[in-house]
Amino acid sequence: MTNLDIHDIGRCSKTFGVRIGYIVNPLESQRDLAQKIIHHWTQGTGARYNPLRKQALERIHVRATLQEVIQEIAEAHHLPAKTVATDATWRGSSVSYQEMNDLLCHDRQPYLLLFGTGWGLAREVLEGSDFVLAPIEGSFNYNHLSVRSAVAIVLDRLTGNR
Amino acid sequence: MTNLDIHDIGRCSKTFGVRIGYIVNPLESQRDLAQKIIHHWTQGTGARYNPLRKQALERIHVRATLQEVIQEIAEAHHLPAKTVATDATWRGSSVSYQEMNDLLCHDRQPYLLLFGTGWGLAREVLEGSDFVLAPIEGSFNYNHLSVRSAVAIVLDRLTGNR
Repeated sequence: MTNLDIHDIGRCSKTFGVRIGYIVNPLESQRDLAQKIIHHWTQGTGARYNPLRKQALERIHVRATLQEVIQEIAEAHHLPAKTVATDATWRGSSVSYQEMNDLLCHDRQPYLLLFGTGWGLAREVLEGSDFVLAPIEGSFNYNHLSVRSAVAIVLDRLTGNR
Repeated sequence: MTNLDIHDIGRCSKTFGVRIGYIVNPLESQRDLAQKIIHHWTQGTGARYNPLRKQALERIHVRATLQEVIQEIAEAHHLPAKTVATDATWRGSSVSYQEMNDLLCHDRQPYLLLFGTGWGLAREVLEGSDFVLAPIEGSFNYNHLSVRSAVAIVLDRLTGNR
């Protein structure tokens, strides 16, 4: 997890209307680092220096497990979240961006998009999700986008004003 | 310019079929740094360690000025490049993604997309371009995406297989 992940994902979340972006990391040292960065820009000197960045990072929360996130969303909304995993190479059943866009427009339940860093989400997370979004495909047989790029593209495809 | 800019933009370029991605920076020290990073992953030990990254970074070239880039493209293609600037807040005449997509499909001339870091492209570059792409708009009145995110979204909108 890098400082730029937090910033880029925060800015995308704000631009495309994501309510909360969660960083999930089992390592306490990584969570502490993320919290420090977020605190600096939302409550520390960074908040006065750059209000735009403050707005972006206010909606980034840090948690230890996915289960915590799912529980928190259910408590906040009194409805369980539907999980939507993303993966670069998924070849199983998947949902298209158009179908997911329709669901987001009409369903009252909260939706939780899941992105993995490094080699992607763990298999059990993919298989346990309510949906898996179709992989992003360019014109060519190469798909190794960074998680920062994938988040930007997916949010734009689902909610951007094209 | 950061290490992650080079990697993310390299990967997006490869995924979406950009022939060459140019990093333009007037500072020699910055160009040297970029060249070192690219060399490591395309010809140095990084190339053996991660062939996927090698493929992505092979198409990233470093130049001192935009004029150099424009001249190089014209010499390579025996046709001048059409320049397409991007900007977060442009309120002048702009071209839509659909219109640009049609041009890219049918026009023989090479097209050069321009992205600025920090506060964006200089005004004279914007005003001197053949086209300015409509700003990326999310659902909300906030548009301060990083250049990494903007590149990913623009390339996907223009060439991605949605």
